[in-house]
Amino acid sequence: MNKAGSRHFVDVDLGDRSYQIIIGEEIISEADKLIAPLRLGKKKIIVTDQNVARNHLICLRKALENGGHDPVDVILKPGEQSKSFSGLRELLESILKLGVDRDTCLIALGGGVIGDIAGFAASTILRGIHLIQIPTSLLAQVDSSVGGKTAINTPQGKNLVGTFYQPRLVISDTASLKTLPNRELLSGYAEIVKYGLLGDAHFFEWLEENGDKVIDCNPAAIAHAVATSCRSKALIVNKDEREGGVRALLNLGHTFGHALETETGFSETLLHGEAISIGITMAFDLSVRMGLCPGIEARRATSHLKKIGLPVALKSIEGIDWSSDRLIYHMARDKKVRNGNINFVLTKGIGKAFVCEDVHMADVKAIIDKNLNS
Amino acid sequence: MNKAGSRHFVDVDLGDRSYQIIIGEEIISEADKLIAPLRLGKKKIIVTDQNVARNHLICLRKALENGGHDPVDVILKPGEQSKSFSGLRELLESILKLGVDRDTCLIALGGGVIGDIAGFAASTILRGIHLIQIPTSLLAQVDSSVGGKTAINTPQGKNLVGTFYQPRLVISDTASLKTLPNRELLSGYAEIVKYGLLGDAHFFEWLEENGDKVIDCNPAAIAHAVATSCRSKALIVNKDEREGGVRALLNLGHTFGHALETETGFSETLLHGEAISIGITMAFDLSVRMGLCPGIEARRATSHLKKIGLPVALKSIEGIDWSSDRLIYHMARDKKVRNGNINFVLTKGIGKAFVCEDVHMADVKAIIDKNLNS
Repeated sequence: MNKAGSRHFVDVDLGDRSYQIIIGEEIISEADKLIAPLRLGKKKIIVTDQNVARNHLICLRKALENGGHDPVDVILKPGEQSKSFSGLRELLESILKLGVDRDTCLIALGGGVIGDIAGFAASTILRGIHLIQIPTSLLAQVDSSVGGKTAINTPQGKNLVGTFYQPRLVISDTASLKTLPNRELLSGYAEIVKYGLLGDAHFFEWLEENGDKVIDCNPAAIAHAVATSCRSKALIVNKDEREGGVRALLNLGHTFGHALETETGFSETLLHGEAISIGITMAFDLSVRMGLCPGIEARRATSHLKKIGLPVALKSIEGIDWSSDRLIYHMARDKKVRNGNINFVLTKGIGKAFVCEDVHMADVKAIIDKNLNS
Repeated sequence: MNKAGSRHFVDVDLGDRSYQIIIGEEIISEADKLIAPLRLGKKKIIVTDQNVARNHLICLRKALENGGHDPVDVILKPGEQSKSFSGLRELLESILKLGVDRDTCLIALGGGVIGDIAGFAASTILRGIHLIQIPTSLLAQVDSSVGGKTAINTPQGKNLVGTFYQPRLVISDTASLKTLPNRELLSGYAEIVKYGLLGDAHFFEWLEENGDKVIDCNPAAIAHAVATSCRSKALIVNKDEREGGVRALLNLGHTFGHALETETGFSETLLHGEAISIGITMAFDLSVRMGLCPGIEARRATSHLKKIGLPVALKSIEGIDWSSDRLIYHMARDKKVRNGNINFVLTKGIGKAFVCEDVHMADVKAIIDKNLNS
């Protein structure tokens, strides 16, 4: 069955580290053909977790074997605890035991956790072996699989240790999203909305019209949303691979959002995209309070998030005793703080985000308190 | 005291990752002035080991404090065992506990082990913080501090896990070499000779004349030898940062040498440079056997190594029951093997090394056996 008609190709242009993202329906089964132009060696090591393996591993292995590849796999336990120092050590030793040389290719098949830890492993084994990302969650397809960030968590915080390492290819199979719970899809959708809000008002309008179809996994709608998000991120990463400047715009909603996730212990209580949805709401509210953004634009952003089913108010998250002082304390300890300054991504309206270095913490506190009482 | 007259500056040209190597006598005490042009933040974390700390830490701390910096230090146990996964984990957690942000600068003060593990840590904390290398061994000054390789050892082998990560500055204080045992100086000298033999016949001639002065730590001679070596390596790294091509020339003597080190368990029995000295001898002998190099050139190379006090024959290493088959087995498992091919660096004479992909293992075995019986 040829589904090439509905495929999207996004080029991530990073000089000799450039690569392509291929987005389409049921394309894991064609992995061999998609990988072939890279002319890699035969040895492929698939890193995945038990849940993803159940749904997709046989299909991927079959495709690779059909293409004359020689796949072996390392299957991790699902969940964030794999993304630790001991998880990395176990993964590295499993891979080294399988035998690697500089033409070995590691394939990360799974969500953000698998992408982050397998990417970290690929970047350090023999100081870097080939990496192919096959993200199977919406969040990974629109965010973590683009831009080359890898990481593990440490007792001191999330993602404090990692590398920048670009894959050779990203294969985003939109059919894999159909197996996801609705709440996880919505969490990924928050990052999609972010791309519209930070720099593409036209895309945000399209989402206002078609967001429901994206959440329903309509193949054309979801492929367009994923491709537009990836293209948007790729353009920003192209300008600033190592996060010295414009890449900071991708953190719209994230300074607030990370503080919320820290407070809830990065648990199921509040998924990443849910935190970002509330964080975006706060960033818009702060921009309005500081006289930077018309109130009507902020209301429009918030109402779309709410309508689609994402949280925008702290009190909708049950069982947490929020405190604006504690959230501000978390912000001050974020890894993006530089020489003691907290930079916020604020906005002049939909599609008009910018980095602001001059935010009074009294305003931040007021916005959090307002949200708490809303 | 102004010693600027005897300073050497080597530029490592790698685009936006370019940096300078400064070589001179007693320049650790001027670290603050040398670092100042980089305009880094105040926070400096010095990583060193107990032995090096005893000789140089007070001097470095004083220089940094004079310059208004705020140095803290992490002092590791000396020796290769720090360069392990658990050593890396401890180091990373010590650094994270000290508190870091993206303007924090890590200073690696020590020999190759400190440079490798502190470099690895710097490359992964917050996905990369500033790194300054202050190598205090001759081997580190002429080899490991140039080119950005970082690594740890794993149960599967040496340096199998690491990154490519360039420092912002290298400060090579030749006075620090005076505290080294003679055997360690000689080990570093083997790498210096390598640069002459692989591509600079003129430098090799200079070493034939002045090698003794280098080993005696004559300030002018050692600074010239270190600077010429760094310049030679920097030129090669500039052409091939990630070891895809010409950088392989730096492995003259290393395919043999690593096999010898593997056999002796990377122990005090055979230091790295001693293994390289025997390895260079074998590479020249193999080149002669294959009709690539005149015998007289090989004898000239070997006789300089021998005259300076380096081993060139396996039987001079006491207590080891060498076997050519076992050494060949080690070579086949080297991390530089690609798609099953062992590449050797051979030579057409002094200063004329090249990578040869077409070596018969029977010839390799014959050369090892010949050396064993020499």
